[in-house]
Amino acid sequence: MPRKKNIFGIGLVGAGTVGGGVAKILAEKADLLAERAGMRLEIVRVADLDEKRIRMLSIPKSRIAASADEVIQDAKVDVVLELVGGTTVAYDIVAKALKAGKSVVTANKALLAERGRDLFALAREKGLPLAFEAAVCAAIPIIRALRDGLVADRLESLLGIVNGTCNYILTQMLEKGKPYREALAEAQRLGFAEADPAFDVEGYDSAHKLALLAALGFDTQVDFHALPVEGISRLALSDLHMAREMGYVAKLLAVARPRDGRLFLSVHPGLLSEEHPLASVSGSMNAVALFGDAVGEAMYYGRGAGALPTASAVLSDVVELARARARGSLPHRWYPRAQNRFEPAALADYECPYFVRFTVLDRCGVLGAIATLLGEERVSIASVVQKGLADAGVPIVLLTHVAREGNLRRAIERIEGQDFIVAPTAVMRVEG
Amino acid sequence: MPRKKNIFGIGLVGAGTVGGGVAKILAEKADLLAERAGMRLEIVRVADLDEKRIRMLSIPKSRIAASADEVIQDAKVDVVLELVGGTTVAYDIVAKALKAGKSVVTANKALLAERGRDLFALAREKGLPLAFEAAVCAAIPIIRALRDGLVADRLESLLGIVNGTCNYILTQMLEKGKPYREALAEAQRLGFAEADPAFDVEGYDSAHKLALLAALGFDTQVDFHALPVEGISRLALSDLHMAREMGYVAKLLAVARPRDGRLFLSVHPGLLSEEHPLASVSGSMNAVALFGDAVGEAMYYGRGAGALPTASAVLSDVVELARARARGSLPHRWYPRAQNRFEPAALADYECPYFVRFTVLDRCGVLGAIATLLGEERVSIASVVQKGLADAGVPIVLLTHVAREGNLRRAIERIEGQDFIVAPTAVMRVEG
Repeated sequence: MPRKKNIFGIGLVGAGTVGGGVAKILAEKADLLAERAGMRLEIVRVADLDEKRIRMLSIPKSRIAASADEVIQDAKVDVVLELVGGTTVAYDIVAKALKAGKSVVTANKALLAERGRDLFALAREKGLPLAFEAAVCAAIPIIRALRDGLVADRLESLLGIVNGTCNYILTQMLEKGKPYREALAEAQRLGFAEADPAFDVEGYDSAHKLALLAALGFDTQVDFHALPVEGISRLALSDLHMAREMGYVAKLLAVARPRDGRLFLSVHPGLLSEEHPLASVSGSMNAVALFGDAVGEAMYYGRGAGALPTASAVLSDVVELARARARGSLPHRWYPRAQNRFEPAALADYECPYFVRFTVLDRCGVLGAIATLLGEERVSIASVVQKGLADAGVPIVLLTHVAREGNLRRAIERIEGQDFIVAPTAVMRVEG
Repeated sequence: MPRKKNIFGIGLVGAGTVGGGVAKILAEKADLLAERAGMRLEIVRVADLDEKRIRMLSIPKSRIAASADEVIQDAKVDVVLELVGGTTVAYDIVAKALKAGKSVVTANKALLAERGRDLFALAREKGLPLAFEAAVCAAIPIIRALRDGLVADRLESLLGIVNGTCNYILTQMLEKGKPYREALAEAQRLGFAEADPAFDVEGYDSAHKLALLAALGFDTQVDFHALPVEGISRLALSDLHMAREMGYVAKLLAVARPRDGRLFLSVHPGLLSEEHPLASVSGSMNAVALFGDAVGEAMYYGRGAGALPTASAVLSDVVELARARARGSLPHRWYPRAQNRFEPAALADYECPYFVRFTVLDRCGVLGAIATLLGEERVSIASVVQKGLADAGVPIVLLTHVAREGNLRRAIERIEGQDFIVAPTAVMRVEG
C-alpha cells in the first residue's frame, strides 16, 4: 500500500510504558501535533511480544504486526520507534530498520552507550537519522540544547544529576534523616527503584547517560566500558550530614571535565556548594549543569523518567522528522564522532578538593598522624571536623585543598595501614 | 558576485556589543562552526552608523557597507542579522531584508514584542525564517525548547525570571540587606543597570520577553500593550524579609497561566516558596520554569544578557539556517499565531494566595478591622505577622488563602480609606 500524503507513518516496536505513553499522546493530541508538525502523525504498525499490551492502546487490530520485522518492512512506516529496551533484540531492530532505509527514534540509553558506535556508523552510512532525545534525561531537551542551542560553544564542564532513583534516595536521607537502606526500601515501595536496584544505585544508568552526554557535548567517541563508576550504596547518613554542615550537598554526579587535552569522565558521589544550581535539585528530578565558553553557566531541569515525559521526548524527535518531510528533506543528522579526540585520562590525575571521612579510634595523636601522612603526599587540609560518635570508632572528616587524586589515594592507603583505623574510608569529590 | 559554494554569507547590521560578540566567535571558531554547520559561516558584509565600531572587528575593509540597504541587497548575503536594537530603524531593516528574500536573525525583543505581528506576517508571506533565539533570555535555548523540545506538550503554566537587573537588585536586597535605592546604585556601578533604569526595574523589558514566550508557549497572539506590568521599585526591604520569614522568596516574575479558556499574563513581583526551582536563581541570572501536561515540571537557567551569551544564541539560529541550506532547504519556520486563541482575561479574575502588607497606626482593634473588611470581600486570612517598627507606622503582613484579585483589591481600597492606614499597601502574588 502506498504512503498516504500528509501522514507521517510511525512504526511502533514495543508497547510498554513508553510506547503506551506515545500512543496516548498521539491519540489525545492528534490535531495539535498535526498542526505543529505540518502533517498528521499516525501509528500505522505496531509490534510487541505481548499482544495484550498492544490491545490496551486502542490501535486498530489491522495495524498489529506479528513481528518487529513486519513493522520495519511496512512501506507506510516512515520512522521506526525502538521502545523495547535492552541491548540485544533492540540492536537488531535498530540495525534492520536503518538497513531498510527507515529513520529511527529510540529512548534506549543502554543500547546507544554500549553499542552505539556500530549503530551510528550504520546510520551515517545510510544517511539516516538515529534520534535519541528521550534516551538522556527524558523530558529535558538536553540533546537538542547541546546539538542546536550551544552549537557556538565549547564546553568547559558538564555535571549532571541524571538518575532519579539515586537522587530520591539521597534527598530522603538528607531531608528525612533516613539511613540508606531505609530510603532505598521506600524508593522501591513508591516505584522509584527496581526490585534489583543495583543498576541505578551503583551508577550504571548514570554512566550510560554520561557516555551519551559527553560524546555529544565534547564531540568525541566515549568508551562506556572504560568509565569509572561509583554509586551511592557506600554513603553513610553521617557523611551527608557532615558535608551539609560544611556547606555542601552530596549528589550522585555524572561529571565530564576537559583539562589539558584530556577529558575526565566519571560517575561518583560528589559535593556541591549549596549555591550551585544543581544543589537544590531534589527528589526524583534530573538536571544537567554546564559551562560553555560563550554562554557561561547554564542548567536544565526536568523529569528524567516516566511514561509521558519520555513519550514527549520521543515525539519531539518524531515531529522533527515530520517537519523535515513536510519540506521534502531529512532533519540535520548528528552522529557522535567515531574517534576519541582526547588523550587518555586517568582519575589519578584528577584535581579537585576532596571530602574524606576516616573512622578512627578515639585516642591522642591520631589527627596528627593523618595530617602528617597527607602532607607527605602533598595533600593539604582546608578544614577538619571531628564530632559525634559513630557505631564503631570516631569519624574524622577533612576537606582538602585542591589535590591530585593519585596522591590522595596513596595517602589514604598509607593511613588505612595504621592501627587506629577501624572502618573503610569514605571519599567524595568537591565538584562545585 | 555569485555566492561561493559552501560559504554561508552573513550580513551583519549593527556592530555594537552583540554584533561584536558574533564577529569574535566567528573569527575564533571558524573551523568548529564550519564542521558543526556543514559549511563555513562568514561575515560577507557589515554596516553600522558608527564605522569605528566595525573597524574594531577585524573584518576586511572591502566588506564594510555604506548602509544597511547595501548589506541587504548583497547577493552573497544569505542571512541578515539585525543587531541594531530599537523599534524604528530595526523594523525597516527586518522588513526590507524579508522583502529582498533574505532570512533574518534578530536579538531584538522590543521590536518583536511591539511590532512583531507585521514582521511575522511578512515572513510568513515570503516563506522565510525570522529567528530570534537571542531575543529572549539570551543563552537559554528557550525558544528551541518551546518550539522543538516541548512540541508534544500543552503548557499549564510558564513563570520566568527574565530580567537580570531586577534579579540582581532583589538578590542584593535580600542577601546583603541593602535598601532598593542602594542596590540599584550598585547595579548601575557594575553595569547591570542603565543610567536610566526604568525600562528594567519597571518591568517593561520583562514584558517584552513575556509577550514572546507566551505567544510561542501558548500558541496565541499576544498584545504587548495590554500586558499588566508592575516593577520592583515599590518593594520595601522589610517586605522581602517578612516574605522570607514566611518561607517565600520575592522575585520579579513574568507569568503566563491559562485558566478556563483565558490566558492570564502579567509581570509583577511575586513570591515563590523556597523549594520552587526558580527560588534559588540569584544575581543577574535568568530562568524560565514551566509545567507541561506531558513533561511535568521543567526549568531552564542561564545568562540572559552579555555579548557572548547573546552572540552564541544568534549563532545557534545562523547555524540552523546553514544546516538547512546544506540540505538544500530552509529550517522549520515558526510564526506566532496571528489570532488570540483565548477569551479576554482581566487580572481582577486572577486567583492565588496573596501577600499583603498594610502600614498602620499601632493601636487596638486595627487587625480586627482589617480582618473584618477582608472577610466582607470574601478574602480569608491564612497567617498574620505583626513585627518590628517601620519608619512610619507598624507593618501588618498577611498571607491570604486563594482569593480573587478583584475582591482583594476592593478590600484593600476599603481598608485604605480607614484612618489607621499611614502608608500605601504592598501586594505580592504567591505564585509557587
